[in-house]
Amino acid sequence: VAARELSLRHPRGETRMWLGEGALAAAASTLGDWVEGRRLFVVTDPRVRALHGVSIAGLAARAGEACWLEVPEGEAAKSVAEAERLWRRMLEAGGKRDSRLLALGGGSVGDLGGFVAGCFLRGVEHALLPTTLLAQLDAAIGGKTAIDLPGGKNSVGLFRHPAFVVGEATWLGTLPRPERAAGLFEAIKAGFVLDTALFERIESDLDALLEGDAQALGQVVGAAAAAKVRIVEEDPEEAGSRQLLNFGHTLAHALESLGGYRGLRHGEAVGYGMLFATWLGEEHGLPAEEAGRLRELVRRVGLPETLLPSTQEILETMRRDKKAREDGLRWVVPECLGRGRVEVLPVDTVRRALEAWRRSLGRGDPSPRV
Amino acid sequence: VAARELSLRHPRGETRMWLGEGALAAAASTLGDWVEGRRLFVVTDPRVRALHGVSIAGLAARAGEACWLEVPEGEAAKSVAEAERLWRRMLEAGGKRDSRLLALGGGSVGDLGGFVAGCFLRGVEHALLPTTLLAQLDAAIGGKTAIDLPGGKNSVGLFRHPAFVVGEATWLGTLPRPERAAGLFEAIKAGFVLDTALFERIESDLDALLEGDAQALGQVVGAAAAAKVRIVEEDPEEAGSRQLLNFGHTLAHALESLGGYRGLRHGEAVGYGMLFATWLGEEHGLPAEEAGRLRELVRRVGLPETLLPSTQEILETMRRDKKAREDGLRWVVPECLGRGRVEVLPVDTVRRALEAWRRSLGRGDPSPRV
Repeated sequence: VAARELSLRHPRGETRMWLGEGALAAAASTLGDWVEGRRLFVVTDPRVRALHGVSIAGLAARAGEACWLEVPEGEAAKSVAEAERLWRRMLEAGGKRDSRLLALGGGSVGDLGGFVAGCFLRGVEHALLPTTLLAQLDAAIGGKTAIDLPGGKNSVGLFRHPAFVVGEATWLGTLPRPERAAGLFEAIKAGFVLDTALFERIESDLDALLEGDAQALGQVVGAAAAAKVRIVEEDPEEAGSRQLLNFGHTLAHALESLGGYRGLRHGEAVGYGMLFATWLGEEHGLPAEEAGRLRELVRRVGLPETLLPSTQEILETMRRDKKAREDGLRWVVPECLGRGRVEVLPVDTVRRALEAWRRSLGRGDPSPRV
Repeated sequence: VAARELSLRHPRGETRMWLGEGALAAAASTLGDWVEGRRLFVVTDPRVRALHGVSIAGLAARAGEACWLEVPEGEAAKSVAEAERLWRRMLEAGGKRDSRLLALGGGSVGDLGGFVAGCFLRGVEHALLPTTLLAQLDAAIGGKTAIDLPGGKNSVGLFRHPAFVVGEATWLGTLPRPERAAGLFEAIKAGFVLDTALFERIESDLDALLEGDAQALGQVVGAAAAAKVRIVEEDPEEAGSRQLLNFGHTLAHALESLGGYRGLRHGEAVGYGMLFATWLGEEHGLPAEEAGRLRELVRRVGLPETLLPSTQEILETMRRDKKAREDGLRWVVPECLGRGRVEVLPVDTVRRALEAWRRSLGRGDPSPRV
């Protein structure tokens, strides 16, 4: 199976992508030309550099000069202070408008790297080399970049597409199994509201996916990325249909925020969010059989138990979310397998549904106890 | 004379502008609708707020809630720390994607305000209300936003156009005369390489312009802005013809940098830069009579004396400039009144010209002694 090539057309140009097994080899010549003779900044974290730095040594050798910029692992990288530190180092190293930046790592490295590239000298080109499942199938696609403020994840950022995305499936074998599981929730999300075939592929290949089989993972990454590309091309700045990608995210963002981003992984929070959004969907006509398939697949991937914050805390946090509106909370409500819609629901409606859903979790519901 | 209305079409939409006497009144209804019922953040500095805050009280009253964000005067506002401080305050104040930001002040307030708006929640809309001559005819037009790093002015920023620009000419009467003079150098720049009629209008109205006559200033602002709009529409991200607007800026940036941004005003540095670029132009065929008109107009506006750094220091600083290239230094060379071209000149050519120009300054040349 060859790597899948995709292209995402956006208002400022085009992003070329290679995803799956052999993606890095397939992209090597194009990326080599892109860095040829230029200053190259590689943003990564120490763990990823140790694991995968050698894979891009050949690429770095084609640059005129390669400068490695290590950042802390995970969300800690996404601060104003880290962005400033990188900008200063890039300036000191003689970075110019035709320099290149490459982000090698998970979603945080890509979010920070894209933001830093987008602002340095009013924008230098960048490429994303995502090394986690979540980043390969979701975070690296669509041009969202961001850093955090205290009390505001992703509060500062840009819509800024990379020139290239290379998601090498063999890199996913080195992930701990819970990381792969967390990433799969984003693939399930895309399948359930956008692409029935993708959802069914995850149902059928789940064991291989969880075990880290590169071929199975590469195919799911390619399909999820393709579904996301279609919708981002339709709606680059999330004014309409792109909001469907937020299925499960209204509750997820609140859970992550209340946990100080040290509790559930993002994908796991999305898992809980999908369970609740599916409950809302059933109240709005989603067939019980299809809701059951979503719950069963979430159960098979496995969600860690967690202590759910109070309904009041959840509602207050949702109202502070940057996507909230004055007139209510915005939800992606699944209509049937492969289709969803965006609804603004009054806070009281959400409160009643949240309380009913919480009660259900304690009564033999197929979703995990919380 | 009514305010001049202009529109700048850019890749993401359109900027509407009102410039000249009565601009604020002409824009009031449109801007009022734009802020109606929303959170409005007003970035300004204490001096400008004291002078002109009252002019926008009516506008602020139409917002759902107005939050004033004061920043230090001048270049000191353009730091990463100030940007972060504003982002945090906007988040705490409940800023959302549909909030609005308005920058009331000189070039620094607009540069910072536009950058902060462009990154907050991946972009909220902003309007610029420039209060200095330099900002009204140059800095507010064209979508450049930026903050500084140590050793790198405007090293971090975005191309991000405002929704609206309102340049009220009566505000220019409160400026100290040297501020108006410094701003006029940018108008002379635009006239000399782009628009002969503008250049000739400055020649004929110079006394009224320097005295702060609102009608004369408003007309020059409108003409200079219109010339800039044409060229920015042609080349939004400065890949080609927009570079002409850098006439005088290659040397100016080096002089400002070597003076630690505490010596010459930006416009004054551009005045020196135009004198040298005109010298280069004469070596490349610019008629002596036209070079003489530029020198004479610069002399009439008046440049403060300054101690010119050594040729070696100037050359080294130019090579570090973000617009420098590996193969030489980039210059806008005037060809004749109203036309210029961009040339990359080898460092040795520039060195010889700089030394010859310096010698000329001491020998009765009409440009001021340095």
